[in-house]
Amino acid sequence: MAIRREFKIGQILIILSTVFLNAKKMSEFKQVIKKRGLEFDNLIDKLDNFKITTPSWAYSEGGTRFYVFKDKFAAKNLFERIKFAGQVNKYTGITPDLSIHIPWDLVDDFYKAKEMADNIGINITTVNPNLFQDDDYKLGSISNSNKDIRDKAVNHILDCVEIGKIFKAPYLSLWFADGSNFPGQTDFIKRKYWILDCLNKVYYKMENYMTMLIEYKFYEPAFYHTDIPDWGTALLFCQKLGNRANVLVDLGHHAQGTNIEFIVANLIDEKRLGGFHLNSRKYGDDDLTTGSLNPYELFLIFNELNKINIKGFRKISFMLDQSHNLKPKIEAMIQSILSSQRIFAKVLTIDRNKLEDAQEKGDIIKAEECLKDAFFTDVKPLLYHFREIKNLPIEPLKAYETSDFKKKLTL
Amino acid sequence: MAIRREFKIGQILIILSTVFLNAKKMSEFKQVIKKRGLEFDNLIDKLDNFKITTPSWAYSEGGTRFYVFKDKFAAKNLFERIKFAGQVNKYTGITPDLSIHIPWDLVDDFYKAKEMADNIGINITTVNPNLFQDDDYKLGSISNSNKDIRDKAVNHILDCVEIGKIFKAPYLSLWFADGSNFPGQTDFIKRKYWILDCLNKVYYKMENYMTMLIEYKFYEPAFYHTDIPDWGTALLFCQKLGNRANVLVDLGHHAQGTNIEFIVANLIDEKRLGGFHLNSRKYGDDDLTTGSLNPYELFLIFNELNKINIKGFRKISFMLDQSHNLKPKIEAMIQSILSSQRIFAKVLTIDRNKLEDAQEKGDIIKAEECLKDAFFTDVKPLLYHFREIKNLPIEPLKAYETSDFKKKLTL
Amino acid sequence: MAIRREFKIGQILIILSTVFLNAKKMSEFKQVIKKRGLEFDNLIDKLDNFKITTPSWAYSEGGTRFYVFKDKFAAKNLFERIKFAGQVNKYTGITPDLSIHIPWDLVDDFYKAKEMADNIGINITTVNPNLFQDDDYKLGSISNSNKDIRDKAVNHILDCVEIGKIFKAPYLSLWFADGSNFPGQTDFIKRKYWILDCLNKVYYKMENYMTMLIEYKFYEPAFYHTDIPDWGTALLFCQKLGNRANVLVDLGHHAQGTNIEFIVANLIDEKRLGGFHLNSRKYGDDDLTTGSLNPYELFLIFNELNKINIKGFRKISFMLDQSHNLKPKIEAMIQSILSSQRIFAKVLTIDRNKLEDAQEKGDIIKAEECLKDAFFTDVKPLLYHFREIKNLPIEPLKAYETSDFKKKLTL
Amino acid sequence: MAIRREFKIGQILIILSTVFLNAKKMSEFKQVIKKRGLEFDNLIDKLDNFKITTPSWAYSEGGTRFYVFKDKFAAKNLFERIKFAGQVNKYTGITPDLSIHIPWDLVDDFYKAKEMADNIGINITTVNPNLFQDDDYKLGSISNSNKDIRDKAVNHILDCVEIGKIFKAPYLSLWFADGSNFPGQTDFIKRKYWILDCLNKVYYKMENYMTMLIEYKFYEPAFYHTDIPDWGTALLFCQKLGNRANVLVDLGHHAQGTNIEFIVANLIDEKRLGGFHLNSRKYGDDDLTTGSLNPYELFLIFNELNKINIKGFRKISFMLDQSHNLKPKIEAMIQSILSSQRIFAKVLTIDRNKLEDAQEKGDIIKAEECLKDAFFTDVKPLLYHFREIKNLPIEPLKAYETSDFKKKLTL
Repeated sequence: MAIRREFKIGQILIILSTVFLNAKKMSEFKQVIKKRGLEFDNLIDKLDNFKITTPSWAYSEGGTRFYVFKDKFAAKNLFERIKFAGQVNKYTGITPDLSIHIPWDLVDDFYKAKEMADNIGINITTVNPNLFQDDDYKLGSISNSNKDIRDKAVNHILDCVEIGKIFKAPYLSLWFADGSNFPGQTDFIKRKYWILDCLNKVYYKMENYMTMLIEYKFYEPAFYHTDIPDWGTALLFCQKLGNRANVLVDLGHHAQGTNIEFIVANLIDEKRLGGFHLNSRKYGDDDLTTGSLNPYELFLIFNELNKINIKGFRKISFMLDQSHNLKPKIEAMIQSILSSQRIFAKVLTIDRNKLEDAQEKGDIIKAEECLKDAFFTDVKPLLYHFREIKNLPIEPLKAYETSDFKKKLTL
Repeated sequence: MAIRREFKIGQILIILSTVFLNAKKMSEFKQVIKKRGLEFDNLIDKLDNFKITTPSWAYSEGGTRFYVFKDKFAAKNLFERIKFAGQVNKYTGITPDLSIHIPWDLVDDFYKAKEMADNIGINITTVNPNLFQDDDYKLGSISNSNKDIRDKAVNHILDCVEIGKIFKAPYLSLWFADGSNFPGQTDFIKRKYWILDCLNKVYYKMENYMTMLIEYKFYEPAFYHTDIPDWGTALLFCQKLGNRANVLVDLGHHAQGTNIEFIVANLIDEKRLGGFHLNSRKYGDDDLTTGSLNPYELFLIFNELNKINIKGFRKISFMLDQSHNLKPKIEAMIQSILSSQRIFAKVLTIDRNKLEDAQEKGDIIKAEECLKDAFFTDVKPLLYHFREIKNLPIEPLKAYETSDFKKKLTL
Repeated sequence: MAIRREFKIGQILIILSTVFLNAKKMSEFKQVIKKRGLEFDNLIDKLDNFKITTPSWAYSEGGTRFYVFKDKFAAKNLFERIKFAGQVNKYTGITPDLSIHIPWDLVDDFYKAKEMADNIGINITTVNPNLFQDDDYKLGSISNSNKDIRDKAVNHILDCVEIGKIFKAPYLSLWFADGSNFPGQTDFIKRKYWILDCLNKVYYKMENYMTMLIEYKFYEPAFYHTDIPDWGTALLFCQKLGNRANVLVDLGHHAQGTNIEFIVANLIDEKRLGGFHLNSRKYGDDDLTTGSLNPYELFLIFNELNKINIKGFRKISFMLDQSHNLKPKIEAMIQSILSSQRIFAKVLTIDRNKLEDAQEKGDIIKAEECLKDAFFTDVKPLLYHFREIKNLPIEPLKAYETSDFKKKLTL
Repeated sequence: MAIRREFKIGQILIILSTVFLNAKKMSEFKQVIKKRGLEFDNLIDKLDNFKITTPSWAYSEGGTRFYVFKDKFAAKNLFERIKFAGQVNKYTGITPDLSIHIPWDLVDDFYKAKEMADNIGINITTVNPNLFQDDDYKLGSISNSNKDIRDKAVNHILDCVEIGKIFKAPYLSLWFADGSNFPGQTDFIKRKYWILDCLNKVYYKMENYMTMLIEYKFYEPAFYHTDIPDWGTALLFCQKLGNRANVLVDLGHHAQGTNIEFIVANLIDEKRLGGFHLNSRKYGDDDLTTGSLNPYELFLIFNELNKINIKGFRKISFMLDQSHNLKPKIEAMIQSILSSQRIFAKVLTIDRNKLEDAQEKGDIIKAEECLKDAFFTDVKPLLYHFREIKNLPIEPLKAYETSDFKKKLTL
């Protein structure tokens, strides 16, 4: 009898402990969160609101100016890219949107592509014209001194607007490689007016649900001047165009040392932040995996987004823009998405009241530690819970790596 | 007889040759200029229109964060600085204007200073408040979360406005050291509104003839974020304030690689270029002698000014802002002025028709060579002629170095 | 009976659960560690081996070139600085060593200082001469063209060697502000030989237990050229001097984008890494709190140190070099120390076998994730345990902030 | 009679004046030179000693990572490139040497190429292996963890040594694109030893007359770490290899702000400067026309070469390395050559005695003005004279532009 009773107690202990402990990690996390004045459900809501658009070109071979390493497993056309995007979304659950690039993603029948995308649960939300891979654009596209070439560029963008209509895509994302390589080569201001004129022509052809995103870039491929080199110039164009033109911030398009989070905050406040091109860099526009070189900087950038309420937040387009030279494409994408989501989750754990209080009192160390505490908080419980309730694999990268899709792809 | 005649002919030859040759260099220069479609007299006019404001503080001891090397010959107060400015103007002829800094230039009686300046031919045209050398400003001046400190800062600027009225100074030049050193230390956007509020209070107290110059700076003394880090932010404030607030471009306040001439062109086109702080740098805000590290960059910046006609041109304030740690103050100033003038003169020799033609045709090499030809043109004939007709020493630096003033000063 | 039994079981459950759960967090950490092929005790050993030297000057008022904000609670002399260092060591347990600066730390009786330090458990291990705050050094100290000035500089360094002997200090740490501000100002190579000559004179006067640390710096306070601008130049001097001259790496003394961890690895491999000046920067030599701007970079730098076994590791001097303009000094120091230790602890959790395996196989994502996993591992259990066994407060910063010392200091 | 005599005197005057004046410009230049303590003939000698090697690839289409603009007039193979090099040498007279790249310049019969080159007066003096355009090199060539790939790389370099023997080429010029894109991807030090091992294998196969040039590069195409990122690392390899391994300085391969002239002076002093890749940049490795962005920096770099006597000077290889995306190839090359020669000629006019004297006295302004005076000296008389005595066109670029060769080429 005594033995049986002890056995029973032992059993009960084990079961209870296990249940208790399984809940323990989450409960600990909830306690941490609660101490910081945050509600767990609210965090889950915000996390659910964080979606990333993946770019079709990052599923394809990428390279440097020296070489493009072959990758026979890379996607070769829009249909394959939609499939790839579907995989990334299947495993991460937060990438339902795809950004396409014309002509790289030209297909005979976009309606067929749309149908396929719809079936997979992928929306094509962004169209990017290509204004840099044509000999005519050698000295500029919409800033070319030759009107015929400018018209050609405008027409190409208008074609993209039409393609966008097929998908009811809310974003027309514009990046111009235009600039010059040598002092004297061109007149900055004449080009400014050509650009404005061309953009106006496009602006008035966009549907009401469309936003024009104007991207700036510090340098490259032009090496002396770039027509839209900084957020200030991009903003000037947006101001002249109207409310449906907003600035796109690519994390790799700044001078060394630039405080990007300040730019982001400023653009949000001006109601002119259109979206992001997420990636990472150490030197130039390196287009590396998001969060790979300075995750704390990404944290500080995402931190500025917390001031926007959930509804407003969805209006900012989070796109990835990476060039996967060395990594396998789908894995690199999943890694980037998870990396971004992890950092975003950490931002959610900031004790904002304590932070504001410390800021008000000028207690620098305390204010700073609020951010550091959040940055170094283990957010796995939150992410795991989120994935559980969304019926996603807990470890998406590992899940993909052992998936049938991958096996078939790399046969 | 024959001998005498030969002698005479020899004499005549020498005299004629000398006269001929004296005129020759100038005539050669005029020919070069003419070939480039330019008129000599017009060049002289433009040169005459190029005036530089010197800063009172550059006549004083300057230093780095590590040390201020003593210079017993440096100016110690406003009266001495006016005298020094008078010397620089006496020898260069193009620096009638002085920029003062409060409280460094505080005197009991500004009217006395004005009288002295008037007598020497110096105008105090710019007043700079100091918002960084007070313990209250540790966490910000007009961006401080403490309203009392913001008010104090505003009051100090308003005092400077009053001082400006004494001199009928057209410029109130504002630089804010405000920013933060650590992520989390502060809220970017709250500060933005505090700044705007403070600037508005000042703006409406300025006389109609006054322009507020808003300076931006990439970093330092704040090392994480600066409240006005770039031209875009400065411009936003100017837009919100009104037409008498314009952007001030300090040549040392940009990230490495920034195309400053593009910013200058853009601000001119937006009618928002208020003025310059001329200096040179290789790394940070090094405040070195203008034109000392990259004279071609200075040439390209001045080049953008040529689009403004003479009248408009005078509305842009050309100030020096240098910190002479190692060099003797007056000589360093004269050197800087001459260096700037030389580069400006070179810009005047650009063949603009040829340049535009080459630009239109996309002939990059020819367009570039137009600039290079001008940059490498020996402009001494032009500068010497200018100084002759202005009764200035041909070689101002040498003239000062052997002057009685210098002898007395360095006794 | 039934009730009592249930009660007993409930009690047992609670007690067991509590014990179990208290150990749980640590046990979880240990499991994570074990999975990564690491031994907990070995981690504790390595952590115990990680000591940081604090610099006396960081307990004093620091500033920028624009202003030094007053801090009445800052330390005013060596005795106070030793006390401060003692406090930092009391709360962190890993800063027994102090680096002093002559003449800032000059006292009448160094033996008295030594006695005081001994009593507090502080060792003065490093002596830094000052070769930049004397008018004689305007154009250089040991690179001055004037032999008398070079001799003066050498004599000052030799004085520091003597002071070092008092403390049996193993490090003579040399930083030269020497350089030039303008092209042409000086001859690079003549200076090189003057420097070498001076350093040789010092080298042969050092005791056998002393190492000369030669610091390099990209720029500032010289703004055109610096005599020892990079690790390559510092290494050349070390090679010419001998085995007891090694390179000192200050984290803020590089061009933007420099891969510091590569330099560190290279110097370790060449057996020429003498030590660090830890701090953080976003722009120039900002001297901010270690780990405050890019903690992942610090992680990658510390990562390279793992190749050195424990014994060799202790030969590298980890010094802080920060300038606390805005933060209270002791708190800033404790924060820096904790920040460094946290990052170091994270490095210890890297699964090196997995990493090497992934590197060998060219599995970039897996290799990268090994580092990321470690970086995002919560190392509090390790640090808490370490502090417990060392009888240190679990949260040193909070403990100091509520200490009597602080209360008295800030009365 | 009187009339006739006057007429005669008039005639004499005109003739004499003309003769006198024709010589005048040169005589003026000679006077300037003489005042600076320089001998004209010596300048001509030095100018004659300044030869530049052109790279075969700069005669071909070049591009950015985004696009390679078509240029139907670009050279398509080694034979055409030799012809192009011949044209550049025909017009400039200072480019007898050609640098080739394998496999881009692979031909069936190198002896035939040699014969053709000999006939045109072109020497192939430098061979560059290609270690970046092969899928095997994705994770490194001579630093690959896979021994087979390292062997393949070594064998390719050895092939280049063999090709070099055909031309008795004194230079084997090595640039490695090797590095990594992500933290953790690889082990820096393992790679260091693989590189050293591979280079040793090559070093011992070079003929005695051959020098191995080891190029360093700050970044790109690797975006996290580069195996040979700076001159210090390149020098370490050279030291370990032997006297026939020297460092190659590419002007575009440094961090922003780097004082390149200091590196050059240091390497000359260490007898380790092997050669240059001349080009210009504003941002990254932009490969723009030499002297196009900061001609004064080029002047300061060339200035450091003046310490080498003529014989030693010839041992340093001056190569161009540019990528002509937008400019016509031959014209861009001639422009670059002339630009370099002009700057070099300016350096020759520095008053070295005055400079040294000013340096010794610490007269910074005077020392600086010595350089500025030289930089702004019009060296056309010197260059024109040099071209006259060498039977070259006075204006090589214009001469080429109107040449039959160009007409035929662009038919």
